[in-house]
Amino acid sequence: MKQYYKVDEWNIIEEGFDSSMHESSESIFSIGNGKMGQRAMFEEYYSGKSLEGTYIAGVYYPDKTRVGWWKNGYPEYFAKVLNSPNWLGVEIQIGNERLDLNVCKVRNFERKLDMQHALLSRKFIAAFPSGKEVEVTTERFVSRVDDELGCIRYSVKALNFNDTIICTTSINANVKNKDANYDEVFWDSIEEYIQGEKAFIGVRTKKLGFEVYEGFTSTYKKNGELFKLVPTATKKEKFVSFSVATALNENEIFEVQKYVSVVSSMYYSDAQLKHACNEKLDAALTKGYNQLLSEHAVDWEQLWEQCDVRISGDAAAQQAIRFNIFQLNQTYTGRDHRLNIGPKGFTGEKYGGSTYWDTEAYCIPFYLGTNHQKVARQLLQYRYNQLPKAIENAEKLGFKNSAALYPMVTMNGEECHNEWEITFEEIHRNGAIAYAIYNYINYTGDASYLWEGGSEVLIGIARFWAQRVHWSNHKKQYVMHGVTGPNEYENNVNNNWYTNYIACWCMQYAAQAINEVKEHYEKAYEALVVKTKLNEAEELKHWKHICDNMFYPQSDELNIFLQQEGYLDKEQILVADLDPKERPINQKWSWDRILRSCFIKQADVLQGLYFFEDHFDTHTLKSNFDYYEPRTVHESSLSPCVHSILAAKLGYEEKAYEMYLRTSRLDLDDYNHEAHEGLHITSMAGTWMSVIQGFGGMRVVNGKLHFAPMIPKQWASFSFNIRFRGRVVHVLIGKHELTIELLSGDKIEVVVNNTSYTISEKDSAHILHHSKPN
Amino acid sequence: MKQYYKVDEWNIIEEGFDSSMHESSESIFSIGNGKMGQRAMFEEYYSGKSLEGTYIAGVYYPDKTRVGWWKNGYPEYFAKVLNSPNWLGVEIQIGNERLDLNVCKVRNFERKLDMQHALLSRKFIAAFPSGKEVEVTTERFVSRVDDELGCIRYSVKALNFNDTIICTTSINANVKNKDANYDEVFWDSIEEYIQGEKAFIGVRTKKLGFEVYEGFTSTYKKNGELFKLVPTATKKEKFVSFSVATALNENEIFEVQKYVSVVSSMYYSDAQLKHACNEKLDAALTKGYNQLLSEHAVDWEQLWEQCDVRISGDAAAQQAIRFNIFQLNQTYTGRDHRLNIGPKGFTGEKYGGSTYWDTEAYCIPFYLGTNHQKVARQLLQYRYNQLPKAIENAEKLGFKNSAALYPMVTMNGEECHNEWEITFEEIHRNGAIAYAIYNYINYTGDASYLWEGGSEVLIGIARFWAQRVHWSNHKKQYVMHGVTGPNEYENNVNNNWYTNYIACWCMQYAAQAINEVKEHYEKAYEALVVKTKLNEAEELKHWKHICDNMFYPQSDELNIFLQQEGYLDKEQILVADLDPKERPINQKWSWDRILRSCFIKQADVLQGLYFFEDHFDTHTLKSNFDYYEPRTVHESSLSPCVHSILAAKLGYEEKAYEMYLRTSRLDLDDYNHEAHEGLHITSMAGTWMSVIQGFGGMRVVNGKLHFAPMIPKQWASFSFNIRFRGRVVHVLIGKHELTIELLSGDKIEVVVNNTSYTISEKDSAHILHHSKPN
Repeated sequence: MKQYYKVDEWNIIEEGFDSSMHESSESIFSIGNGKMGQRAMFEEYYSGKSLEGTYIAGVYYPDKTRVGWWKNGYPEYFAKVLNSPNWLGVEIQIGNERLDLNVCKVRNFERKLDMQHALLSRKFIAAFPSGKEVEVTTERFVSRVDDELGCIRYSVKALNFNDTIICTTSINANVKNKDANYDEVFWDSIEEYIQGEKAFIGVRTKKLGFEVYEGFTSTYKKNGELFKLVPTATKKEKFVSFSVATALNENEIFEVQKYVSVVSSMYYSDAQLKHACNEKLDAALTKGYNQLLSEHAVDWEQLWEQCDVRISGDAAAQQAIRFNIFQLNQTYTGRDHRLNIGPKGFTGEKYGGSTYWDTEAYCIPFYLGTNHQKVARQLLQYRYNQLPKAIENAEKLGFKNSAALYPMVTMNGEECHNEWEITFEEIHRNGAIAYAIYNYINYTGDASYLWEGGSEVLIGIARFWAQRVHWSNHKKQYVMHGVTGPNEYENNVNNNWYTNYIACWCMQYAAQAINEVKEHYEKAYEALVVKTKLNEAEELKHWKHICDNMFYPQSDELNIFLQQEGYLDKEQILVADLDPKERPINQKWSWDRILRSCFIKQADVLQGLYFFEDHFDTHTLKSNFDYYEPRTVHESSLSPCVHSILAAKLGYEEKAYEMYLRTSRLDLDDYNHEAHEGLHITSMAGTWMSVIQGFGGMRVVNGKLHFAPMIPKQWASFSFNIRFRGRVVHVLIGKHELTIELLSGDKIEVVVNNTSYTISEKDSAHILHHSKPN
Repeated sequence: MKQYYKVDEWNIIEEGFDSSMHESSESIFSIGNGKMGQRAMFEEYYSGKSLEGTYIAGVYYPDKTRVGWWKNGYPEYFAKVLNSPNWLGVEIQIGNERLDLNVCKVRNFERKLDMQHALLSRKFIAAFPSGKEVEVTTERFVSRVDDELGCIRYSVKALNFNDTIICTTSINANVKNKDANYDEVFWDSIEEYIQGEKAFIGVRTKKLGFEVYEGFTSTYKKNGELFKLVPTATKKEKFVSFSVATALNENEIFEVQKYVSVVSSMYYSDAQLKHACNEKLDAALTKGYNQLLSEHAVDWEQLWEQCDVRISGDAAAQQAIRFNIFQLNQTYTGRDHRLNIGPKGFTGEKYGGSTYWDTEAYCIPFYLGTNHQKVARQLLQYRYNQLPKAIENAEKLGFKNSAALYPMVTMNGEECHNEWEITFEEIHRNGAIAYAIYNYINYTGDASYLWEGGSEVLIGIARFWAQRVHWSNHKKQYVMHGVTGPNEYENNVNNNWYTNYIACWCMQYAAQAINEVKEHYEKAYEALVVKTKLNEAEELKHWKHICDNMFYPQSDELNIFLQQEGYLDKEQILVADLDPKERPINQKWSWDRILRSCFIKQADVLQGLYFFEDHFDTHTLKSNFDYYEPRTVHESSLSPCVHSILAAKLGYEEKAYEMYLRTSRLDLDDYNHEAHEGLHITSMAGTWMSVIQGFGGMRVVNGKLHFAPMIPKQWASFSFNIRFRGRVVHVLIGKHELTIELLSGDKIEVVVNNTSYTISEKDSAHILHHSKPN
């Protein structure tokens, strides 16, 4: 762990340039608007190490999977988040020297991400080998108001010379994915063309035929005044640029404003693309940089009013929670039902795919709490739309009767991961997808989803589980073999408690859902039976038989559920016993050693206890937490948040705070030495959960909001808004007092530490509380 | 299963050309001489499907492994058996039509492999689209006398035309491995050159820098008379050829004899290669085709005298056992200590690597029985030479104290497989390597290997096991987690009985070996202790503690050892219950379904009972055989032989015979639909074992040869020679009588069905026997 960036409540700031940190900073300072985004590469030429990444939501590449020996059922491709044409290029040359921070001497460097306005800026002084010095300031954003638009302002001041400045602005589609399995180029050129002072590029993916057009134009200023320069256009395969040259004398300032439009065949027919790309650009030019920036900034300010979490007394925690919320809002806006929350968002290419179980397990609570419920509903709808593919996935593995296995990683519903250990075995994801339906209905009270698709999903999932278990003649119980639980530091285990538990829960919930549809909406029920060919009597009886006779590994002596059958046979060592030099074990140990060890990558049994907290008494939660947490290395980004929430629930204030910092500053402080590959976007929703559900103790029970607050001793107070069933509730938790204000909506009953309060609109309740004892 | 080739005792014959069978036939008709070999591609141009394969022993390529996500400890490369420059080319053109069996109409086609003389021949009549017809006969061999020499005789008779024949002989190094992980070309050109009427090509592997030179020259005959033609030479990158054109009138016969020398940097310095390649060729020319062929044929006849197995009354069985022995002798001669027995020999590129545990478990008994013991000793020495690499392999996985883990697949001692499931987990191979030492000493009585390297190997292996197990606090026993047994249709299982058993056996045998060295050769003992830094008191005590407290999964109720812990929890189905359409399951089922099923790919518990037969009573053998065989799909080539031997031992005559046919005709009848990829060379040694140890019931107990014969009812008699401790013993087993003749060597005591007989040189014993009852 290192604290490299300056702690500031609204900004991420890098002071001084350290090229060895550049790739991490490229991740940290990424910007995006839900439709596109990019890593924080420099606009100017840079010869040092960089992970170039420009991404367009929904545009992906089915890269042929890389496996040792192909076996039946293996996914055929690994969907790559696609590195797209790079529109950042602003190259600067003074005389015959090119600006390159890897060559120049750099001082007074500052890179800043203003999270309140989603604006990335830099300033620095660079000394060329010749001794000439320039002061550079840059600024850029991808507009949240027009999400197909990006803008750059780049200015250069001559500090100690008179010479010519040459400025080349460009779009470059000669890009690759560093993680391409076979080092292939994924883009073909369609065309490059210059239209007056606008330059365009059109490219098409070699497979699936996604088309992207990008266009740009640049305007110039000298000493703050618009300044007409006639650019020289260059057009090569997959590359267009404009160059201008002008004299720059000491103390003069040259500035370029670059407007970029980015459109893709996700939203336009192939025939419309060129036209749309051009129109966007014209509209942007008409508005001008300052207005575009101001609209964008205002939009972000409004967004923050909805979803900010304020922490007073702990600037690092404040910065961190904002960074997490900021990145989530950069990644997903809920505007397009075909998109989802990629695990690295627009910050890196690792992992591929756009959709993991992270969406259901971590992100949906965030969007439920901070957005209109239609956003979460849309995420459910996404899975409903992919149900036919989930059925196909299961069929490929030999399942019948329209059983559905949702993919571990997907773009379009097909499984598309590289590793069979994950795709075949980590099937608990199917459970999370069912759980999200329950969670949505429990939170919103909107059961209509059950008859508008939800029950079909649940039936498919229940059928999968019913076939995936089998009767053990030896145990005289049902068992489930060959799975990987959330803890990916195991694989091919038998009777993973979490998977067995959620499997049975799914079958029970599916049965309940069918009954609810039958009771509430008979026509829908009839249609459901026809569509799914449900044999209700027999199938539900079978599901019940499984649930009544399922084997769950556990230790009565330790009062714990066993992560999997045989877990206690492992050599039992605690993380505290590990030499710090051996961590993270996934970078220091061979894979087989990790598999054999008792160390846990992320919450597994505890993930189940988190989901189904109300099924277990506190004593059981405690003994399991006490057993497993000391064996957990938290080398998954999804681990600390769950532990933070459970620790808060159990009154383990220090552990809750430690885990909160770990989840919230995971990337900022680079706990797992991997920030250079991109950020852990989906786990950021877990960070939000750890504040709201952890310290706030928020739950929804029988349709009512509950709070059971705990405030870390480092904090003076913290506050947040919650959207709940048409209301917006503001919650402020101080050292001793909880204030709940109903900002809008009908009066609401809120339960705090088992006492119920009714609050009307614009009114608030002030409630004394005591942090839970240790 | 299909019977495509004609049954013949000494020949493999394909009658009629079926292009869909061509790739299988390319495998079946492969020829080799231990140093080089090739698949039975056609000499002439062929536009149909073909798996081109020309191989040179020891010349390989470290192809970058193909894995999803790299993890620590993964092997960095997968050693590819390298497809080398193809020297077969004899292209025939009549007028302007090229001979291509995929285009011409073919009749009277016969392809024949004369196993007695290792000679591959073809004859056919081909009709060109124009209607012109030629009768072609071809013949080729790779000399066993000079193993760097190959010869082709190719003759063409004009049946119904007068025209020009153009004949182009060539060497082509523009070859690829079809199984290259990244579709790369592995060869660089060094040079191509023409020297009079000889043409040469020199190539170098892109990695490791193996160099190969191949040269050829051709002589021509017309109507049986030598005939001088001036060839036109062509030289391109990685290609050299000579073309001749001459008139060919109806009923005239044109013949070309092509001499090829193949030398590699395995045996020559780079500077010597060119010279050696040229000299070989000159020497061959001097001898001429007929003499070269005759020397080669005589050499093979002599070899057959040593190692033939004769079966009378069952031509299919006779052909099959000869085919197996023939292929083994083509693959490995024991002349070079750096070589080993590749699983596909010179017949295909699948699997990669040259050395698997197959060598120790299957091949060593064959070479012990049919060759001088120095051949088997050399195979042991091979592993001794690679001990430092085995220690490195273990270190990469975190093992200490010079523990040795021999690789699953290797060329030079490094692990070089594509799949971690295999390399990390299928560690039982380490046991087979120790077992081979025991086996060698038990068979030969030559304990000297213990102080000449063997004990070092055993100590390294014992140390590995001692670290690989761990104490289960829960079981209060030692356990071994995360392994794959010989049955690769499981992985990452705990307490595989076979692995646990052989691990303990290794530790016990290592301790015993150390004691033997100490007792017999004190100086060697002292050197051993110094070299291995053995802490005898402590280490042996620890090994003993493990062996005394090891957990073995078993079922008392069923009187069986469990393949692994939890095996009985699987759904228990028998192979007989499977729809034949679902087999082979490795081609019909998804991988996860296979893993979860109870079906067994190859002997696992039974492999252990085979190795350690004398540790168990017959009742135990029987109950395990009866339980596991019906659950075994035999989708590994290494499975049926073990079952055949055990079935014979248990008196299951029909099962023994069924399994014998399956192992011996595995490739000829293509049981597993994969003969096109190459043959199962190492399992062919298992076929030999199933005759000698199975039906012959041969064992070595307390230094004495034992026999317990059983004769399948389909056979009239069978006979074989056995080399044993300086003697050659001939054994003939008839329906009721066993005849043992001592062909050479000191008088010998032989035990038949528990009765002892002493036989002197040139004498024999005739013993009545009854096949064991069912």
